[in-house]
Amino acid sequence: MSETTVIRLRKNEERRLKAGHLWVYANEIDTRQTPLKDLPAGAACIVENSQGKPLGRALLSPHSLIAARLYSRDVKQELSRSFFKKRIEQALALRETLFDEHSYRLIFGEADGLPGLVVDRFGDVLVVQTGSGAMEAHLDTIVSALDAVLNPTHIIAKNEAAAREIEGMERYTKALKGDLVDEVSLTENGARFVAPLAEGQKTGWFYDHRSARQAMVPLAKGARVLDVFSYCGGWGVQAAMAGAESVTCVDASETAIDYVHRNAKLNGVADKVGSIQGDAFAAMKQLIADGEKYDLVVLDPPAFVKRKRDFKNGLAGYHAINELALRLIKPGGYLISASCSMHMPADRLLDVIHSSARHIDRSVQVIGYQGQGPDHPVHPAITETSYLKSWFCRINFSL
Amino acid sequence: MSETTVIRLRKNEERRLKAGHLWVYANEIDTRQTPLKDLPAGAACIVENSQGKPLGRALLSPHSLIAARLYSRDVKQELSRSFFKKRIEQALALRETLFDEHSYRLIFGEADGLPGLVVDRFGDVLVVQTGSGAMEAHLDTIVSALDAVLNPTHIIAKNEAAAREIEGMERYTKALKGDLVDEVSLTENGARFVAPLAEGQKTGWFYDHRSARQAMVPLAKGARVLDVFSYCGGWGVQAAMAGAESVTCVDASETAIDYVHRNAKLNGVADKVGSIQGDAFAAMKQLIADGEKYDLVVLDPPAFVKRKRDFKNGLAGYHAINELALRLIKPGGYLISASCSMHMPADRLLDVIHSSARHIDRSVQVIGYQGQGPDHPVHPAITETSYLKSWFCRINFSL
Repeated sequence: MSETTVIRLRKNEERRLKAGHLWVYANEIDTRQTPLKDLPAGAACIVENSQGKPLGRALLSPHSLIAARLYSRDVKQELSRSFFKKRIEQALALRETLFDEHSYRLIFGEADGLPGLVVDRFGDVLVVQTGSGAMEAHLDTIVSALDAVLNPTHIIAKNEAAAREIEGMERYTKALKGDLVDEVSLTENGARFVAPLAEGQKTGWFYDHRSARQAMVPLAKGARVLDVFSYCGGWGVQAAMAGAESVTCVDASETAIDYVHRNAKLNGVADKVGSIQGDAFAAMKQLIADGEKYDLVVLDPPAFVKRKRDFKNGLAGYHAINELALRLIKPGGYLISASCSMHMPADRLLDVIHSSARHIDRSVQVIGYQGQGPDHPVHPAITETSYLKSWFCRINFSL
Repeated sequence: MSETTVIRLRKNEERRLKAGHLWVYANEIDTRQTPLKDLPAGAACIVENSQGKPLGRALLSPHSLIAARLYSRDVKQELSRSFFKKRIEQALALRETLFDEHSYRLIFGEADGLPGLVVDRFGDVLVVQTGSGAMEAHLDTIVSALDAVLNPTHIIAKNEAAAREIEGMERYTKALKGDLVDEVSLTENGARFVAPLAEGQKTGWFYDHRSARQAMVPLAKGARVLDVFSYCGGWGVQAAMAGAESVTCVDASETAIDYVHRNAKLNGVADKVGSIQGDAFAAMKQLIADGEKYDLVVLDPPAFVKRKRDFKNGLAGYHAINELALRLIKPGGYLISASCSMHMPADRLLDVIHSSARHIDRSVQVIGYQGQGPDHPVHPAITETSYLKSWFCRINFSL
């Protein structure tokens, strides 16, 4: 093989890597010594500190803010099929320990040692997302490695994230093995679901709330449940299966609401599950005006704080929906309030819930906290890999 | 009834109470207007802001740093049997929603609206702890209210905390209803346990790890498990029941180790559970020297940071045990690392785990987090009510 590209860091810029992080920002590279331009995206390179000591191997994204992502501390490690196979097997071993079901996030990027790669498993269908041009350049090898480890019937690339355009990557969905499918099937905590692939969000399903939905079970028994931002009914259908008296799912998307009813039927709880298609804020305001009250409200909104600079507006959004939800809860009832915004810290979300409650003279007992499920492991040095939080609260009249 | 005692706050000192907190520190009281001395511990008083606006009713501890603890925002609320009954019923409703077993913390102080009172339920045996002289003064009413709600066979006061002496309270264990018992029986996640009352720690059992022990189940299956600071085998016996190949419990207390073996037998897993009686540090060092390796190590130490000023030493302790534990874990194995120190934040504990791992060239995937169980609710305005954290990590060779 030809000589491997080297990038050299500026003085003292190796500290983040030494602390366990995997990213190199463009401005940390000594571009006089090792120019970035003209290097191809996806090239494997050796990262050195300013004294020329090698730190590991990285994938290059020369035109991105994150110019390189370490994939191994072994400077000899090639980006071969056997490398990908080993990492996939290591990730699979964790999921097989955790789950009987073949439904989970198989690869969660950096936290599984494969920066920029996400793979969700829906039985024999794998859905792949590449978050960097660097990883995308190796898609053929990845497909070959996935095939070798799992021999799935379908491998679909679903690369529709708007953020791709920032990196100059095209948005597309296509089959890499087998035919393109319209929807995926999965099981979660024993419930069966179908979800739309092409028309759906992300890879079609949000496995990240699996543990939180399991933790909901005792609160749903015999309860009147409101599931706000329900998508395809992940929370609502599982609440009905846990013995809820009734469940109302609220979502703006007609497709999502169609899937709610299909999923309710699939699990024999169609008679328990109703829906409201429409804006969540408007729907909750109407329910308040109608005097409706619930034993359990689940709030699982999309990210209100997509970028750091959206924080103030996003925070106002979280305040607004949480206060609306609190007004809909019977005394002694429960709120599950989630945020998937990486920029919204867990303690700030709890502040939102508590101050919203104080505002309408309610008190809060925090009875649980759930982060993302274990098939979305967190890399302790990379805060970006930790994004999901759900607070479980009991709401009383102020003491 | 005679006129109720009033304590008036200094200017702007009502902010904490307004934000939902329940405590009034002695130095926040305008003692020129409303002197504290000569007031009896346990008197109910009205707390006013500096303008004389009433904020609620509190229990007085005139000689303590925390001089008053709000028990109601209703200024007319007497400390009657019916008041205690109502709060106990409210707390019970939460536990009955959550658990089929009659084994749980029934009352968790401030978070259940009863500042300074802890009650653990072991079926028909209730064990009561009073953490303030103010609450202790109402013990007769509390016993009467507990009796009315639950009609237990035994109510035992176990007031042995060393901290009681700071408040000038005596340390004692005595039966308030029925005879004194030597031990308590309980079920947790379907496992049966006995635990020592008089000789045991706290109320005899630590219910606060129930959810975390449940979350351990998939990691224990087929595993070689080391349970460090095992006490009576809460983790270890449940690991064996979850299908562990073998479990070794380590504890310094002979009594605790005796109970480990009794509890293993009680659940039909005596053949899986072994023990080492001795200092945890020494035991782990010996196991390392012997070349032992485990699939799962559980670290559940006593509080290494009891007071804020112990932080540095405590942190060193957490570093030391976590590094020892990491050395005992097979690649791809798991660590559950807990801290019950209120002064040890969750993120600092994760830093300890991660930096210890970096130090011996291991990488960490965080696959879960558990706080205290839902029968130990957190009061969102009172950080002191949140103390327990457990990180679930998978440990690999550095990537």
